[in-house]
Amino acid sequence: MPKRGVYERDAINAILDEGFLCHLGFAVEGQTYVIPTGYARSGDQVYVHGSAASRMLRELISATPMCLTVTLLDGVVLARSAFHHSMNYRSVVVLGEARQVTEREEKLEALRCFTSHVLPGRWDEVRLPTDQELKATSVIALPLNEASAKVRSGPPVDDEPDYALDIWAGIIPMRLVAGNPTPDARLRPDIPARKYLIPGAVVTE
Amino acid sequence: MPKRGVYERDAINAILDEGFLCHLGFAVEGQTYVIPTGYARSGDQVYVHGSAASRMLRELISATPMCLTVTLLDGVVLARSAFHHSMNYRSVVVLGEARQVTEREEKLEALRCFTSHVLPGRWDEVRLPTDQELKATSVIALPLNEASAKVRSGPPVDDEPDYALDIWAGIIPMRLVAGNPTPDARLRPDIPARKYLIPGAVVTE
Repeated sequence: MPKRGVYERDAINAILDEGFLCHLGFAVEGQTYVIPTGYARSGDQVYVHGSAASRMLRELISATPMCLTVTLLDGVVLARSAFHHSMNYRSVVVLGEARQVTEREEKLEALRCFTSHVLPGRWDEVRLPTDQELKATSVIALPLNEASAKVRSGPPVDDEPDYALDIWAGIIPMRLVAGNPTPDARLRPDIPARKYLIPGAVVTE
Repeated sequence: MPKRGVYERDAINAILDEGFLCHLGFAVEGQTYVIPTGYARSGDQVYVHGSAASRMLRELISATPMCLTVTLLDGVVLARSAFHHSMNYRSVVVLGEARQVTEREEKLEALRCFTSHVLPGRWDEVRLPTDQELKATSVIALPLNEASAKVRSGPPVDDEPDYALDIWAGIIPMRLVAGNPTPDARLRPDIPARKYLIPGAVVTE
């Protein structure tokens, strides 16, 4: 089967850990909003953060059940018929109610997770958050107990008679690529960039 | 300003035309869902499609206002402080009520848009939809009159004293790359692949 639901926690964790950009959905007064934002998994929960001034997180905290979706695009699927064109992807949908993280130590740990997830090792290099910065940051946690994954992989599936047609069919693989680090114009030239391993991305030389 | 709202239609159209995967948000009985799916812009509206059996589209058609979000990731922004780390991206959020496309000619035109948007020229090569396939496909249209874009670009913005720190800062550029087409195992070897230009993707040789 090219498309199937996956409920095993290991499979869900692997997708969550390979991505770092999610789409967060929530409703305010009957209108649904979907906002892209960063996230990091920590055990059985996902942390999402943003400015304390952000309307999104203020709303989420008191919201109806929300939805966090992560999608990794793997390819475009070209069938012989227009109808059977598709995409190969892996996605996770997490449903639930968000908990606001208020305790200082947990908030700091969540921030460490965000940074370490996208840029392993970076947390040990950077100037760490001050108390004022911690106060200016909202962090919410979403439990993973209502999470599911959906995966489409493999070749196109055509209607049997269509296999005889003179039409190219197959997959165009898609991947996210991290390019060479571009230094800030104000960086002192004697400070070298390390090799950063962005999750889910191929690093070019 | 690194982050700003953009409301000009040309800027919104450019982002919508560069992407092809959106995240669609809608509410069913108080629960928000966010689902990844394909889309294509056609003038002042965006078409979204799926199987007629899909619960998502059935719900959307009678739904409260929905939200369609497209996000193009451009880079990871490394500041000297953990607090100012960010991402460069361009996103569009479209709010509104979906209209079900029922008329045969418009449905066919929407399907042509989906295919031609992701794979220019492909529509003229493939076996076109039968009446039965058209009936099995749901298409909805979402008007672009309530659309906005958000863009973050440029270098990290650090607190002034932090510029003196011995910490690398800059951008890791991110891009979507389309690999070499992989033929279906059942493809006749005498049928060549053409060069497909996937929107927003760099094509490798």
